[in-house]
Amino acid sequence: MNYTIFGESHGNAIGVTLTGVPSGIEINMDALLFEMSRRATGKNKLSTARKEADEIEWLSGVFEGKTTGTPLTFIIRNTDQHSKDYSQLKVLPRPSHADYTGMMRYEGCNDYRGGGHFSGRLTAPLVAAGAIAKQILADKGIFIGAHIASVSGIYDTPLDSAADQRELLREVAYKEFPVLDDGAGQRMQADILQAREEGDSVGGTIQCAIYGLSAGLGAPDLNENLEGELARHLFAVPAVKGIEFGDGFALAGLRGSQANDPFCMEDGQVRTRTNRSGGINGGITNGMPVVFTVAIRPTPSISREQDTVNLSTGENARLSIHGRHDPCIVHRAVPVVEAAAALAIVEFLK
Amino acid sequence: MNYTIFGESHGNAIGVTLTGVPSGIEINMDALLFEMSRRATGKNKLSTARKEADEIEWLSGVFEGKTTGTPLTFIIRNTDQHSKDYSQLKVLPRPSHADYTGMMRYEGCNDYRGGGHFSGRLTAPLVAAGAIAKQILADKGIFIGAHIASVSGIYDTPLDSAADQRELLREVAYKEFPVLDDGAGQRMQADILQAREEGDSVGGTIQCAIYGLSAGLGAPDLNENLEGELARHLFAVPAVKGIEFGDGFALAGLRGSQANDPFCMEDGQVRTRTNRSGGINGGITNGMPVVFTVAIRPTPSISREQDTVNLSTGENARLSIHGRHDPCIVHRAVPVVEAAAALAIVEFLK
Amino acid sequence: MNYTIFGESHGNAIGVTLTGVPSGIEINMDALLFEMSRRATGKNKLSTARKEADEIEWLSGVFEGKTTGTPLTFIIRNTDQHSKDYSQLKVLPRPSHADYTGMMRYEGCNDYRGGGHFSGRLTAPLVAAGAIAKQILADKGIFIGAHIASVSGIYDTPLDSAADQRELLREVAYKEFPVLDDGAGQRMQADILQAREEGDSVGGTIQCAIYGLSAGLGAPDLNENLEGELARHLFAVPAVKGIEFGDGFALAGLRGSQANDPFCMEDGQVRTRTNRSGGINGGITNGMPVVFTVAIRPTPSISREQDTVNLSTGENARLSIHGRHDPCIVHRAVPVVEAAAALAIVEFLK
Amino acid sequence: MNYTIFGESHGNAIGVTLTGVPSGIEINMDALLFEMSRRATGKNKLSTARKEADEIEWLSGVFEGKTTGTPLTFIIRNTDQHSKDYSQLKVLPRPSHADYTGMMRYEGCNDYRGGGHFSGRLTAPLVAAGAIAKQILADKGIFIGAHIASVSGIYDTPLDSAADQRELLREVAYKEFPVLDDGAGQRMQADILQAREEGDSVGGTIQCAIYGLSAGLGAPDLNENLEGELARHLFAVPAVKGIEFGDGFALAGLRGSQANDPFCMEDGQVRTRTNRSGGINGGITNGMPVVFTVAIRPTPSISREQDTVNLSTGENARLSIHGRHDPCIVHRAVPVVEAAAALAIVEFLK
Repeated sequence: MNYTIFGESHGNAIGVTLTGVPSGIEINMDALLFEMSRRATGKNKLSTARKEADEIEWLSGVFEGKTTGTPLTFIIRNTDQHSKDYSQLKVLPRPSHADYTGMMRYEGCNDYRGGGHFSGRLTAPLVAAGAIAKQILADKGIFIGAHIASVSGIYDTPLDSAADQRELLREVAYKEFPVLDDGAGQRMQADILQAREEGDSVGGTIQCAIYGLSAGLGAPDLNENLEGELARHLFAVPAVKGIEFGDGFALAGLRGSQANDPFCMEDGQVRTRTNRSGGINGGITNGMPVVFTVAIRPTPSISREQDTVNLSTGENARLSIHGRHDPCIVHRAVPVVEAAAALAIVEFLK
Repeated sequence: MNYTIFGESHGNAIGVTLTGVPSGIEINMDALLFEMSRRATGKNKLSTARKEADEIEWLSGVFEGKTTGTPLTFIIRNTDQHSKDYSQLKVLPRPSHADYTGMMRYEGCNDYRGGGHFSGRLTAPLVAAGAIAKQILADKGIFIGAHIASVSGIYDTPLDSAADQRELLREVAYKEFPVLDDGAGQRMQADILQAREEGDSVGGTIQCAIYGLSAGLGAPDLNENLEGELARHLFAVPAVKGIEFGDGFALAGLRGSQANDPFCMEDGQVRTRTNRSGGINGGITNGMPVVFTVAIRPTPSISREQDTVNLSTGENARLSIHGRHDPCIVHRAVPVVEAAAALAIVEFLK
Repeated sequence: MNYTIFGESHGNAIGVTLTGVPSGIEINMDALLFEMSRRATGKNKLSTARKEADEIEWLSGVFEGKTTGTPLTFIIRNTDQHSKDYSQLKVLPRPSHADYTGMMRYEGCNDYRGGGHFSGRLTAPLVAAGAIAKQILADKGIFIGAHIASVSGIYDTPLDSAADQRELLREVAYKEFPVLDDGAGQRMQADILQAREEGDSVGGTIQCAIYGLSAGLGAPDLNENLEGELARHLFAVPAVKGIEFGDGFALAGLRGSQANDPFCMEDGQVRTRTNRSGGINGGITNGMPVVFTVAIRPTPSISREQDTVNLSTGENARLSIHGRHDPCIVHRAVPVVEAAAALAIVEFLK
Repeated sequence: MNYTIFGESHGNAIGVTLTGVPSGIEINMDALLFEMSRRATGKNKLSTARKEADEIEWLSGVFEGKTTGTPLTFIIRNTDQHSKDYSQLKVLPRPSHADYTGMMRYEGCNDYRGGGHFSGRLTAPLVAAGAIAKQILADKGIFIGAHIASVSGIYDTPLDSAADQRELLREVAYKEFPVLDDGAGQRMQADILQAREEGDSVGGTIQCAIYGLSAGLGAPDLNENLEGELARHLFAVPAVKGIEFGDGFALAGLRGSQANDPFCMEDGQVRTRTNRSGGINGGITNGMPVVFTVAIRPTPSISREQDTVNLSTGENARLSIHGRHDPCIVHRAVPVVEAAAALAIVEFLK
C-alpha cells in the first residue's frame, strides 16, 4: 500500500491517494474517527486553538463501505482558514521551518500560506490512511501502539520491550495526554504550558511498538531492510529528527555482553530474554516486539522574536510570529507515528 | 546509482552490481584502495587478525579505466577462509547476531558459514562502490567525511556543524583511529583493548558530514525526503541501530528558541548561525552542511560464554564462540558510513 | 512525473494524483480544455450520446495558476450517471470486457456500475494530466501528435516517419475525425455507422510520433529502455492490445538490407534516410522521430446478443446489453494515446 | 525477482545479479544447460560459427545446490574473443545497430568491441536466469513455451490459443528449429540460407504462451498491468520491435462481435470459447492461456555494403562488415523470449 499525501494548508483540500489497497476491507469509521480525534487540535491549551472540521470525503476506491482494491482517494476540505496576510512568510523565513527550503526547492512557486504543503495539517490524511492500514494489520494479528517517551527531558516509563504490552497501549490511546506514567505526564504538561507562556515551544520523543510480526521478515539488503523502511516512513513525519531501534543510541555505550539479547525457549518458542535490539537483527524481525523511538524537535513556530533574514532586501532582520501555534506537538504526533509505522508495515508485508 | 551487494563470507566471491553509473568517470584506483585500506582488518589489535586480500576484479562497466555507463560489477574473491566447522552456528544461534533471523528469513537455506551474507566482510564492496560515488560527488564539489563520535561513552570533540570542516575530515581519514581529539582516541582504544581482554566488545557512534549540497534538494514527501533516504541507506550498514540529523535526540530536550537555527546573511548568502537541524528542514537541504550521527551496536560476536538455545533439541543452551573477532568495529565502520552516504547522495542527485 | 488515476465511473469523482511535477509550469487551461474536448463524447453519432461535463476541480499542487512542484491532484465530478440497474453486470459478465477479471481480481468488491474503475471515463483525467505533460515537453521543444492509422482495415496515409511532421499533426488534432486522408476518414466513418446500425463495434490502429527528442536517451537494460517504458504506459490505456515501433511487425518480413536505416549527414547532423526503426536502436533514441503504432480492439460492449455465463447459477447464458455505447473509440483514443506517451516521456526525461 | 544483466561482449565476463530470489530452489542444472543449449551458436549454418563455452560460474546466492534467497550472481567468462581490430565501429556505425545510439548515450565511453553491452551475447545470462525463473514457476504449475511464428513472412501454424498446448511446446523446445509445422520450418530455413548467401539477414515473429496463471492477476493501472509488465520485459530483449497480446493488431480489423471471446462453462469452470484477447482483459488475467507474439527485426549486422557516415570526418561513407554474423536470430531468440516472460511473471507474482 503506497501512499501520496497531497494538499496545502490553504488550498482547496488535502488528502491522500493509496494504491495497492487490499480489496474487501470494511472501513471501520468509528476507529478511523477515533484516530483522527487523537491528533485533533483545539481540545485544550496544549495545542493551537485552531479548529479543523476534518470531515472525510471519499472519492474513490470505496464501495458499499468496503475497499474495492482500486486506487483509494479521500480528501478533507480546508475550511477554518484565516484570510490574513501571509506574505510576510515569503520575505522573512521562520528559523528551522521549511519556509526557506520550500522556496528554494520549489523555486518560489509553492503555496506559502500557513506552511502550505509543509503544514502539520497534512498529517490528518496520514492518520486517516494509517487507520485503514491498522485495520488491515489487525486482520493479521498485528497491533501498533505508541506513547510519549519524553517531553523537554521529562521521561515517561519506557515500555517493557520484551513483553507484549498491547493492552497497555490500547488504554494509553484513550488518554488526552498519552503517557504510561500520568505523574510524569502532569510534569510534562506543566512544562508545555510554561513554554507557551514564554512564547516558546518544546520537543520530545515517542516510543512505538509493533506486536504480532512473525520472525523472518526483512533482509540485510538496502531495499528490503525493515529498519531502513520504517526509518524512511518515519522521517516523512514532520519534525522527526532521529530514530533508533530498541535501545538504539544507548547500545553504543554498552559492552556486547550487556547489549546482546540472550535467546531462551518459552512455551516451545524461541524468544529473547531482553529486547535491546528492538526485535530486529540484520534488518530482519526475530519475532520479538519491534520497538523504536523517534525524536520530535520543538515546534519551530514560536512567538518570541527571532533573528532571520529579509529575502527581498538581503539583510538581516527580526521576526515576530503572531497567530495560533502549538507549544508542543508531541502528544498529537503519537497517532501520526503509529500511522506512519502502520503504512510502512502494510507495504512491507505486501 | 543503485547498488546490490552480493556474496557470502565463504562463497566464491563477494561483490557489487551498480546501475545508473554516469559514463566517463575515470576510476581513481589510489583513492579507491585508500578507502579500502581504511576498513581493512589485521592492522592492529583493535580488529580481527583475519587478513583479507580484497583484490578487486572488474567484470563489467569499466573500459580503458573509465566507467562506461552500463551496469558495473566488480568482485572480490574470498581467500582467507578457515575451513573450520561452522555447523555449530546452525544449531546454536549467536545472541543479537543474524544467525537466527537469517535462518528464519531464508528457511534454513542461507550460507551460515562465517555469517554468510550477513558478514561484515560485505562492507568491503560497499566501501569500494562508495569510493566511486565519492569521485562522482567530488566532481560536483561535494565532500563526505566522518569521524568516531564516541566509543563506550567516551566522546570525541564534535564537528562544528555550522562550519566547513572538510579539511579537518580529510586529515582524520588518514588516522588509524579516526577521531578529532587524539586524547579521547587513546582512551577509547584503551577501552577497546580492555573489552578484548574480557572477551567482550564495545559500540560507539559515528558523526558524518556532507559538504557542498546546494539548498533546495529533497522534499517533505515519502519518496523524496533526504533524511529518509539517508536513513534507509545507513540502516543497510550492519550494526547501525539509530540515526539522528543535526542535534537529533538532543533537540527533543530543548525549547524551540534554543533549537531553532537563526538565519543570517554572510557574504551575500543566506545561512544559519547554528546548524542544530543538520542542514535539513522539511526533508530539504538548506545549504548548510548535512550532518548526522549513527549508533553502532557492540559487535555481537563475543568470546564470553552466553545463553542461547539449541535449535535442534529445542532446549536452552550455552554458547562459547572461538575464533577471530573484532572487539570493536566502530573505527572500521567510519569509511563504511561515508560510503553508504555517498551512494545515497549520488542516487538522490540523479 | 508519476501518475495515479483514481475513481470509478459512478463514484463521487474521478481524478489523478501527479508526483514529481516540475514547479512553475503555468497551466494553459485553453490547451488543456482543447485536449479534453478531443476525447469528449456526444459530439456526433460516432460516439455515445452520454454527455460528460468534465469540469476540472484543482485540489492541490497549483497556486496562482502555476504548478507548485508538490503533489498535484485534480478531480472531475461524476454527474451524468444514469441511476439504472447495473446488477446484471455482476451476474452476466460482458465478453472481453473486464467485468469478469475485475470481479476475480477484486474479489467481488469492485464498483461494477458502468464499468467502475475500468470505465473509459477514466481516460478523461489521463488526457488532462497528459495536457500538463505536453506543456512541460513543449518547453523543451518536444511535441507529440497522433492520428488514426486505420479503422476496420481501412487505412489512413501513414506519417513520413523520417520527416518532421509536427505541423501536419497539429492540424489533424483540430479535426473531428483525426486522419491525414479525409477520403479514407469518410470511409472509416461510414463503416463505423454501419457497425452501429448492426449493433456492433469496430477497432483500429493509432500512429503516434514524438518530435524533438535528442539522440542518446534510454538504455538497452530493463529499467531504462525507452521502448519498454513507452509500451508500459500505452498498455495502461484501455483497449490497447499491441504496440510496435517504427515498421514493427512489418520488419519481421523484411531482409536486413531492406529494414536497416542508412545513416547520412544532413546539415552537419547525423540522421537516417529512412526511419523503419522508429527512432530507437538498442532501447535508445537516435535523434529521429520516435514513431509507434498501437492496436485498439473493437469496443467489447455491443448491443448484439452474445454468449456468456451466469455467474450466480454457473450456467451458460445469453446477454443483451442496452444503453449508450461507443461503436468506435479509436478517434477518441487519439488524444489518450498522446497523453500516455507524454506522461511516459516526462517521467523518462526526469 | 529483479534482474540486472551486466557485461560486455569483450570484457572479462558477462552475468546477472538477481534479487528477491525465493530461498530453497534446487537448481536443476540439466534444465538450465538445456535452455542455454537452445540459444547456443555454432550448431549449424543458420547461426554464427562463433563458439561460446558459456560455462556458468556461481558467485553468490547458491549454497549446497539451492538458492539461499540472498542476491544471486553468476557469470560467464568471455573466452572466444577475436582480438581483431574493432575500431572501425567507433567511426562507421552500423545502420540500425546500437553503435551510434550507444556512443551518444554513453558519451563515447562504452566498450564498442563486438557490440559491447549491446551484444546478443548478453542474452546468455538472461536465458540462464530465465531457467531459474521457469523452475520457480513450475513449482506453481506455470509453464511458458514459445515457437517461431514466422520467418520472412513464411508462417508456422499458430497455437490454438484457447487450448492448453504445453505438451506440444515442450516437444518443440527439443527441435533445432522450433516450429510446429516442420514443412514451414524447412521453407524458413531455406530462406535463411538464401539470405546468408546474399550477405543479408531475415527477421521473424515468435509466439509465446503462458499456462497455469489463475484468473485475477494484474490491474488496469500503470504499475500493475500485466500486459504492460510483459511488454516492458520483452522490449529489453534485443531486436524486439513489437508485441501484441492474443490476436493483437488483427483485432483492430474485426467487428466487436468477431473479436469478443464468449464465456462458457466447462467442467464447472468459467472459460472463453475463443481466446483472441490472449488471456488478459483490463490488464488482468482471465484464466485462459496468456498468449503474445513479438516481432524480431532482421539482424542489422549484414555483410552487404551499406551507407553510413564517418563520425570522425562528418562525411557520408560506405560500410562493409566482415566476420561471423547470424543471418537469423529468430530461432535462437525463442528461449530468450521465454526467459524474459518467465522473469516478468516471477516478479509479477511476487
